[in-house]
Amino acid sequence: MSLDDVALAAGASRPLVYRYFPGGKQQLYEAALRSAADELERCFEEPRSGPLSGRLSRVLDRYLAFVDEHDAGFSALLQSGSVVETSRTNAIVDEVRRAAAEEILLHLAVKGPGARLRMMVRTWITAVEAASLIWLDEEKQPPVEELRDWLVDQFVAMLTATATTDPQAARVMRAALIMEPAEGSIGRLARRVVPALGEASHLL
Amino acid sequence: MSLDDVALAAGASRPLVYRYFPGGKQQLYEAALRSAADELERCFEEPRSGPLSGRLSRVLDRYLAFVDEHDAGFSALLQSGSVVETSRTNAIVDEVRRAAAEEILLHLAVKGPGARLRMMVRTWITAVEAASLIWLDEEKQPPVEELRDWLVDQFVAMLTATATTDPQAARVMRAALIMEPAEGSIGRLARRVVPALGEASHLL
Repeated sequence: MSLDDVALAAGASRPLVYRYFPGGKQQLYEAALRSAADELERCFEEPRSGPLSGRLSRVLDRYLAFVDEHDAGFSALLQSGSVVETSRTNAIVDEVRRAAAEEILLHLAVKGPGARLRMMVRTWITAVEAASLIWLDEEKQPPVEELRDWLVDQFVAMLTATATTDPQAARVMRAALIMEPAEGSIGRLARRVVPALGEASHLL
Repeated sequence: MSLDDVALAAGASRPLVYRYFPGGKQQLYEAALRSAADELERCFEEPRSGPLSGRLSRVLDRYLAFVDEHDAGFSALLQSGSVVETSRTNAIVDEVRRAAAEEILLHLAVKGPGARLRMMVRTWITAVEAASLIWLDEEKQPPVEELRDWLVDQFVAMLTATATTDPQAARVMRAALIMEPAEGSIGRLARRVVPALGEASHLL
């Protein structure tokens, strides 16, 4: 695809397109990526009230709708070895990841998040990306709501495991669980985990 | 660094180095990567007996020793936007990831692993990579044994959360927990998680 094709598809005059994008196709691509990154960062905005799992679910709904909509572009950008990546496109992708991590840490309402909690959050964000790529690769199976619930469960599981050795994560977890409604997904998760661990009574 | 520098550093004659690597620096790099990938895949080999957490710990010890030893090369390769990556180098990296996933699924001893279990394993492998990069970035803190234990805990947590909605993962988890010794890290994890969930009694 050439810049001429873009001009044609956009119904714009060739000189106009070349004036706006003197850097050619790569500049056009970076402008599109910049716009997509802004859209994605807006997905992360969520009021800091109510149960944490609900907030996470709503952000993931918007994120996964973005992944669904931009499927080919999302895969092309995040698969390693993308033909379109440059240090500038990578800086934009890293900026989105950083924004996501900062937003989550704000929701966890912790002052001065420690190394372990930050590692957990950044690791979960990578897990969300990887799961999104697998989901696209497997023709968007399972249904998006199941993927979302699984990712929320993974967040709680990773936080819970981290909380067993990190006092700050333990405080965050305690504060988060208090807000969860019994009939919600975290209540369901907890009610299923406890008897499963109970089966391994030799460990307890 | 030029191919001449390599010849000098290796104490080899220039004609010899150019004969072995007619494709120049990129070919030399790919040969080095191929050799590193083989070394990494050998790290994954682990007898299929004894508690699963012990097997995972030993594999992670070897993997993290590799990361520690090849720190600069490991970061350069896996940071997005590596200057050295090509479709061939990415194919090698993906092959290592696939080998890791297959090895883990063999250890889980499941015939025909379903989509959810495969997604969990692939997602955890991405998490290990991300955590390794963060660890290198943070000057190899925390101590490698803590990072290893945290990664084993994360595996168990992710499997446990997946088991609450996936019957195959539930069977795998049950079989794995039976083999764990009470005095081991998974016993410790279970004994800490149960009271933490118990505090959120309104969920249970």
